[in-house]
Order: sequence, then structure tokens, then C-alpha cells
Amino acid sequence: MHYTAATRILTHTGAMEMLRAGVAKAEEIGQPQCIVIVDAAGEVLAEVRMIGAKFLSRKSALAKAMTAASTGGATVLIPEVVRPAIAAATDGGITGLPGGLPIRLDGHLLGGIGVGSGTGEQDIAVAEAALRAIGAEV
Amino acid sequence: MHYTAATRILTHTGAMEMLRAGVAKAEEIGQPQCIVIVDAAGEVLAEVRMIGAKFLSRKSALAKAMTAASTGGATVLIPEVVRPAIAAATDGGITGLPGGLPIRLDGHLLGGIGVGSGTGEQDIAVAEAALRAIGAEV
Amino acid sequence: MHYTAATRILTHTGAMEMLRAGVAKAEEIGQPQCIVIVDAAGEVLAEVRMIGAKFLSRKSALAKAMTAASTGGATVLIPEVVRPAIAAATDGGITGLPGGLPIRLDGHLLGGIGVGSGTGEQDIAVAEAALRAIGAEV
Amino acid sequence: MHYTAATRILTHTGAMEMLRAGVAKAEEIGQPQCIVIVDAAGEVLAEVRMIGAKFLSRKSALAKAMTAASTGGATVLIPEVVRPAIAAATDGGITGLPGGLPIRLDGHLLGGIGVGSGTGEQDIAVAEAALRAIGAEV
Repeated sequence: MHYTAATRILTHTGAMEMLRAGVAKAEEIGQPQCIVIVDAAGEVLAEVRMIGAKFLSRKSALAKAMTAASTGGATVLIPEVVRPAIAAATDGGITGLPGGLPIRLDGHLLGGIGVGSGTGEQDIAVAEAALRAIGAEV
Repeated sequence: MHYTAATRILTHTGAMEMLRAGVAKAEEIGQPQCIVIVDAAGEVLAEVRMIGAKFLSRKSALAKAMTAASTGGATVLIPEVVRPAIAAATDGGITGLPGGLPIRLDGHLLGGIGVGSGTGEQDIAVAEAALRAIGAEV
Repeated sequence: MHYTAATRILTHTGAMEMLRAGVAKAEEIGQPQCIVIVDAAGEVLAEVRMIGAKFLSRKSALAKAMTAASTGGATVLIPEVVRPAIAAATDGGITGLPGGLPIRLDGHLLGGIGVGSGTGEQDIAVAEAALRAIGAEV
Repeated sequence: MHYTAATRILTHTGAMEMLRAGVAKAEEIGQPQCIVIVDAAGEVLAEVRMIGAKFLSRKSALAKAMTAASTGGATVLIPEVVRPAIAAATDGGITGLPGGLPIRLDGHLLGGIGVGSGTGEQDIAVAEAALRAIGAEV
């Protein structure tokens, strides 16, 4: 293996477009949401807490985004049987709660998005709307 | 949506009246309590730890108050099946322990009250007495 | 004093417009920035980390935003002589670093904005651009 | 020395009377305050954050109360020259900021009170009013 490798990163322009589309979807379905977007290292790129959203959902949305960015898969794919042990071992970082999806574009894993405050279905719908807005895989 | 929106906040006069009434109820039933009141963003407005109360109940009372303020509902309404996962993803912020109630008055969610140290029934009784003292919904 | 009082809050529409204008200003001056917006209780409403910004500036931008929201004034107004002591006593929450400004609109203190990654002048310029975008006091 | 020793503790009735008197004094001088009361072990007994007080002053008021309870003296008695080192070594627990006073009554050190959000003089005036309300040394 070489000492460096090429990759791609999500820009703030991309992250803010995701927020915009996520908020628009949340308003459409009438469910205020917390939306968090992290990069491939789990560091926050952008986030918003809508009026009426549960403020503690900021924390769970961050965990969802980090889980998806770290594993490269949806949070719901974390096997049920290992969830308590993995949550404990990662200080709550890994969660199986629905609403976390990886951000994949141009063949690269760019990070993750986590959405929280609604039902699992609503959280996922908002995350998918955000992914579609930048042409990412859904 | 506009850039700002009207709301109402709980004053310290209201928070201290809640403490007073909560302590009176706790003394009436003979169960010392920790009582914590937070605003709509989860920031502490007032709290008291009664002589004889469990000092670690300060922490659980805070989690109860934050859960109720964040969700707008009683802590016991958090579905049993998701409690462990949500607690882990929010660093213990969301709890299903009884004794956390939202503070609703004049049509606004003003925050939450959390009570801990007694049985679930005693904790709820003290929280309700505090809510009634300011004319909040019970 | 009554149990409740009227106030106004910043909506996510307002917070996102602030992010948009702040990013536009940062791009105009060629200095990537971290921008954090908190409500009147210090809870994060929205944030963005621009490509090329210092990632640790997320933390200082948050402290700037919280300082401005808590004190109702610009961070640079914290007297130099008390800065070390106040920073220590608030776990780094209060900072005198330039780039934190209160968000005042319609006669209410709605929160604070913190910007970090550039020079003090650049940070303040971006914060002011964000405030102007929603018609807040500068 | 015997295995146990007699002491006295501050009750919640005493702590709440201190809050009441402190708030009354703060309203009289027109400066909203954060007031924190801790016991002789530094554990919070009661606190209140008045409408209009700086929310980050909750943290500094706690540090002031803990410093006074731990040292048995006013916070301003911490020698200037050692303040930075002691603050660093106690994780911000020890502070020389004005507004922290010990609670002494019946010949016992019962804890400490910390007040923050005003000038040093205002903070001390509110703390002294609270002490006088329960007949504690000033």
C-alpha cells in the first residue's frame, strides 16, 4: 500500500444543501426534527434543531450520524443482539435507533446523517430526502 | 416561517413556587425528595435536595426533568422497548423512570420537572403538586 | 412577578439564514469558518464547519456563541483582567476571544452566534453578516 | 479521636429561606442573579436562576459556593498569586471571583453560597442577604 490515498469529502455546500432538503421534508410531513451531518471521521459538518423538535434528539441524532459514518450502513442494520454491548463499549456512540444513514457519493463513504425527533419512519424519510438532494445513494 | 416566534417562559417566581409546593407535598407524605426544574431548552431553573433524600437522585431527577421538557410528555410515556437504546444514545438524558412531567401553562411548553428519591407514585405526586401550585396542566 | 413571561425565540428558518449569510461572507473574504448559533439558554440551534476551517474552532465558536448569549454582549467586552478566572470557573464556557455576538431582534435577546477559524476581524465580520441577514442588531 | 463526631447540617428549609432572601435582595437592587447553595461536602442543596441572569453564571456561582464551603472563607480571600494554579489543579472548582461566602451557624461550617451575574459587589450583597436571613455569620 502507498503512503497516501485519494478520497473525496463532503463540502459545507453539500452539507447545507442536505440540511435544507431535510428541513423541507420535515416541514412537509409536519414533524420538527434535529438533523446532524458528520464527515467520514465522525466530526460534525453541519446541524440544525428545528423549532418544536426534542432538544435531546440532538444527542441521539449525532449518535445515529456517527454510527452510519463509522459502519458505512444504516443504523438499523446493527444486529439487535449486540446493540446494548456495543452502545456500552462506545459510550453511546453506536446506536441501532432508526434514522441514521451513510452518505455515499461518487463511490466514496463521505460521512453520515442522523435525524431524530419523529417516529423511526419519519426520521428515515427526512434522512433520505437529504441524501437525494445531493445525489447520494439511498 | 419567520425568523422569530412568540413564546412564554417560566419565571423564577414560578419555579420557586413549584419548589415550595413540591417540598410541602413531600413533607406531607413523609418522603424527602430531590426536585429539579428545567426550562424549555433543558437548562436548570431551580432545584432543591431535601434532608434525607438520596443525593444521587439529583441526577435522575435532572434526567426526568430534561426528558419531560424535551419530549413534552411524562417520562413514563417513553416506550419500554426503546428505553435502553435511547438512554445510551443520549448519555442518560432520556429516561423512562416515573417522576418527570412537562410544565404546560398558557398553551406553552415551559420546561419540565423531575422528582426523585421516593417510589414512582410518590415522585409523581410531588411533581403534580408542584404543577398545580402554578396552575399548570396536570 | 408572574409565573410566566412573554418572549420571542429564533426559528430554524432564522438560524439557517444566518448560516447561509455567514458562509457567503466567509467565502467572499476567502476564510473558511466554523459558525455556531445557540438559543437564549445556550443550546445549539444550528452550526456549520466549512471545508478548510480549523476543526477545533468548533469548540471555541461554541464558547463564543454561549458567552454572547449568556452575557448579552460581544465576547470582546469581557474585561481582560477577569478572563482567566471566569474561563476556569465556567469550564471554558466564558471566553473573551473575538467573534461572539448576541442575537437581538424585536427587542429580545434570542441567543448568540460564534465564529472561529479566521482572525478576530474576520470572525466578527462573518458574525455581523449573519446578524444583518435577519435584521438583527449589529 | 473517636470514630464519630457530632456536627450540624443545613436543612432544605434553611437553604430555601436563603434562596428567598437572596432573590428578594436581587430584585431590590435590580440585578437578576444565579444563586447556588452547597453543603459541607460541596453537594448542591438548592439553586435558582433568575429571569435575565446570565445562564453561564450558574457554573461560576457553583464554583464560588464550593470554594467557600471547602475553604471556610470568602472566595476573595484566595490569594491572587495562587489562583491560576489552584483553579487548574481543581478543574475550576476553586475560584477567587467575588460572590462566594461560607455558611457558618451555631459554630459549624454548614456549606457555602455562590452568587453570580452581577458585579462583585452585587453578588456579595445578595449572598450576605441570604446569610442574614437564617442568622448565619456575615
